[in-house]
Amino acid sequence: MSNPTAAMLVIGDEILSGRTRDANMYHLAGRLTEMGIDLKEVRVVSDEDSEIVGAVNGLRGKFDHVFTSGGIGPTHDDITADNVAAAFGVPIGPREDAIAILATNYANGRDDINAARMRMARIPEGAVLIDNPISKAPGFSIGNVHVMAGVPKIFEVMLDGLLAKLTGGDPVVSETVRLHIPEGDVAGPLGEIASAFPAVSIGSYPFSNAEGYGTNIVMRGTDLALVAQAAGKVRVVFDAE
Amino acid sequence: MSNPTAAMLVIGDEILSGRTRDANMYHLAGRLTEMGIDLKEVRVVSDEDSEIVGAVNGLRGKFDHVFTSGGIGPTHDDITADNVAAAFGVPIGPREDAIAILATNYANGRDDINAARMRMARIPEGAVLIDNPISKAPGFSIGNVHVMAGVPKIFEVMLDGLLAKLTGGDPVVSETVRLHIPEGDVAGPLGEIASAFPAVSIGSYPFSNAEGYGTNIVMRGTDLALVAQAAGKVRVVFDAE
Repeated sequence: MSNPTAAMLVIGDEILSGRTRDANMYHLAGRLTEMGIDLKEVRVVSDEDSEIVGAVNGLRGKFDHVFTSGGIGPTHDDITADNVAAAFGVPIGPREDAIAILATNYANGRDDINAARMRMARIPEGAVLIDNPISKAPGFSIGNVHVMAGVPKIFEVMLDGLLAKLTGGDPVVSETVRLHIPEGDVAGPLGEIASAFPAVSIGSYPFSNAEGYGTNIVMRGTDLALVAQAAGKVRVVFDAE
Repeated sequence: MSNPTAAMLVIGDEILSGRTRDANMYHLAGRLTEMGIDLKEVRVVSDEDSEIVGAVNGLRGKFDHVFTSGGIGPTHDDITADNVAAAFGVPIGPREDAIAILATNYANGRDDINAARMRMARIPEGAVLIDNPISKAPGFSIGNVHVMAGVPKIFEVMLDGLLAKLTGGDPVVSETVRLHIPEGDVAGPLGEIASAFPAVSIGSYPFSNAEGYGTNIVMRGTDLALVAQAAGKVRVVFDAE
């Protein structure tokens, strides 16, 4: 059986404007690889209703899981939850359990939940909450869409809780062989090795340093023995260590 | 008149697997913002023909420019050029001018261009070359799609040459006001300011440090005076410096 698939949707004008460098994509990619969920696509879209709805619906129909990051805070530009609800065609409103959780974050409990903060307790109908041990405001899963915060520390801790509940697949293992050979001289024989190991994904990444041009060959797959065999073949063919 | 729009398409199993942290998106976002081209979407797709063709066609119809990164080297996993040609429905093959440029990279000129390297001289019909002063293998523009290398140093230098030939818009300027106030207390009044300045995009980004919770308010827009006016209003309303 093949591994579950996933997409990530980053809601982020601050990424698209170049103000902030995304950190969540790199983190999510590593975590999913470890547990055998194949991240197949990432989209970064702007903070516009139609863009978010379109991306949620495009991705949730195509992949087993969609992980979103960003846009679930208390301010006017936090529009992710509303648009996820719209994508699913369900109502959204403040939910009692979310309000109770949120209240634990403030000195005066519910009395400190002003109208803006109440926005963070608005949950689409039918969703399941995702814990946020840091600032309490929960994320949520609805169908196969998992909605999390954009602040990296909070994204990461929400993801920890969420992934513990998801079923992974066969972890993808990888092995890298570093060749001090330019990519153009590697390419021909490497293509033949790739053809001989169809179940191993073989990537080739050129580098250059003071010693000249070289190429990292990365073997990836769920069958540890096959990955090792392909790496061994690369070492023999290119006379590498 | 509104600014030209753009999307980025990253072809990158190595990003999706978490092996490599993308650097080109952040660089491109900053450069485009400087010259008034609005980056509206980024997609990262896997090294699969149908995914690349689908993304190229989806994005080129929607935005004024599409910038791609990755997948134009000599190895079996470099399939971007073929798929861009397929997306446009045009033939692709080695082109004389591209071969001549490529030859300048090798000690023995054309004699060093083996079958794998010849792949890097394959250019879709009707495309215009993009210079690569580092490793010579050119990128290309076809229609509104600009195809560049994934290695950051090479992506950046290709982009330099390309952007010099594109027409920008009004540069987007931004101003940040740092508030030592939690986002939930900022949200209400900030929403009113945002409504009063519809031509200014106002984003709110929470942070926490040893001193407690705070919020960065970022005003962005093409009208310097309006951006400054909105920032001034934020300072007054929140009693900030």
